[in-house]
Amino acid sequence: MPDSATLRPGETTVELPPAADAQLRFIGRIRTPFKTRADCPRQGSADGPECRVEIDPILEPALDGIERTDRIELLYWLDRSRRDLLTQSPRGSGELRGTFSLRSPQRPNPIGTSVVTLLRREGPVLVVRGLDCLDGTPLIDLKPARCDQAERRREAAHQG
Amino acid sequence: MPDSATLRPGETTVELPPAADAQLRFIGRIRTPFKTRADCPRQGSADGPECRVEIDPILEPALDGIERTDRIELLYWLDRSRRDLLTQSPRGSGELRGTFSLRSPQRPNPIGTSVVTLLRREGPVLVVRGLDCLDGTPLIDLKPARCDQAERRREAAHQG
Repeated sequence: MPDSATLRPGETTVELPPAADAQLRFIGRIRTPFKTRADCPRQGSADGPECRVEIDPILEPALDGIERTDRIELLYWLDRSRRDLLTQSPRGSGELRGTFSLRSPQRPNPIGTSVVTLLRREGPVLVVRGLDCLDGTPLIDLKPARCDQAERRREAAHQG
Repeated sequence: MPDSATLRPGETTVELPPAADAQLRFIGRIRTPFKTRADCPRQGSADGPECRVEIDPILEPALDGIERTDRIELLYWLDRSRRDLLTQSPRGSGELRGTFSLRSPQRPNPIGTSVVTLLRREGPVLVVRGLDCLDGTPLIDLKPARCDQAERRREAAHQG
């Protein structure tokens, strides 16, 4: 069992039916210098280390045009999380909070989201800054960050 | 088959093995006034209509403390999307782009993300503004939006 299997005082869980409503296929893997949870920063930072987002080579054509944006939203699967916590005590603070009022990795569907800066592309690999997840984290999705889109639209309106 | 089953000229697909790397459990459902794709705005707007985010009542305790934030990130399953598009032509523009360089709902793992404004909570229901998805869209996750967290940290530092 992962180290997350231990409950902190007061934390509550719920018994849920098996997760079987939809299925994911991992599209790649994230490489970071963070080998353990203790290594991970609390939140990715613009001046954090370079990380590599490795896309399954079969999906490389789906990256066409990604260089047009420098802010990319990543979705990834926090595969070492427990999924049954209703309330939790962030970093053992003693304070109890509902799971959905926190960005904790422990949640019914343990999906992390980050907005990162694209430094460069090397074939099916994106080199980025701004991640806080463990090395080897499975990738689910990537797309231009929202605000970037708004900027592009403003730009388009300006040029039109 | 959904209306999304038709390919536009030049669009390319890939044959993928079944999606079986991880399983999702829907945690609720999103109610919007948008009954068809044509009704959906291109992007949610701060002055858009009120929408209801209905959480499975068994998970209601996980909402504790959600009122502390007014900007919430929602993740939802775009269940009418095809998942095999490598390149696509946004709104039939003729221009071809890689799927990952677009926020299109058609993607290998069709997960949409939005940041919405929380207007009020009614038990297991959150009333929000800023959505653009179809009525009945399955909900996967909700959490405080990232920038809000940064704001809270600055606040905490200020008070500390």
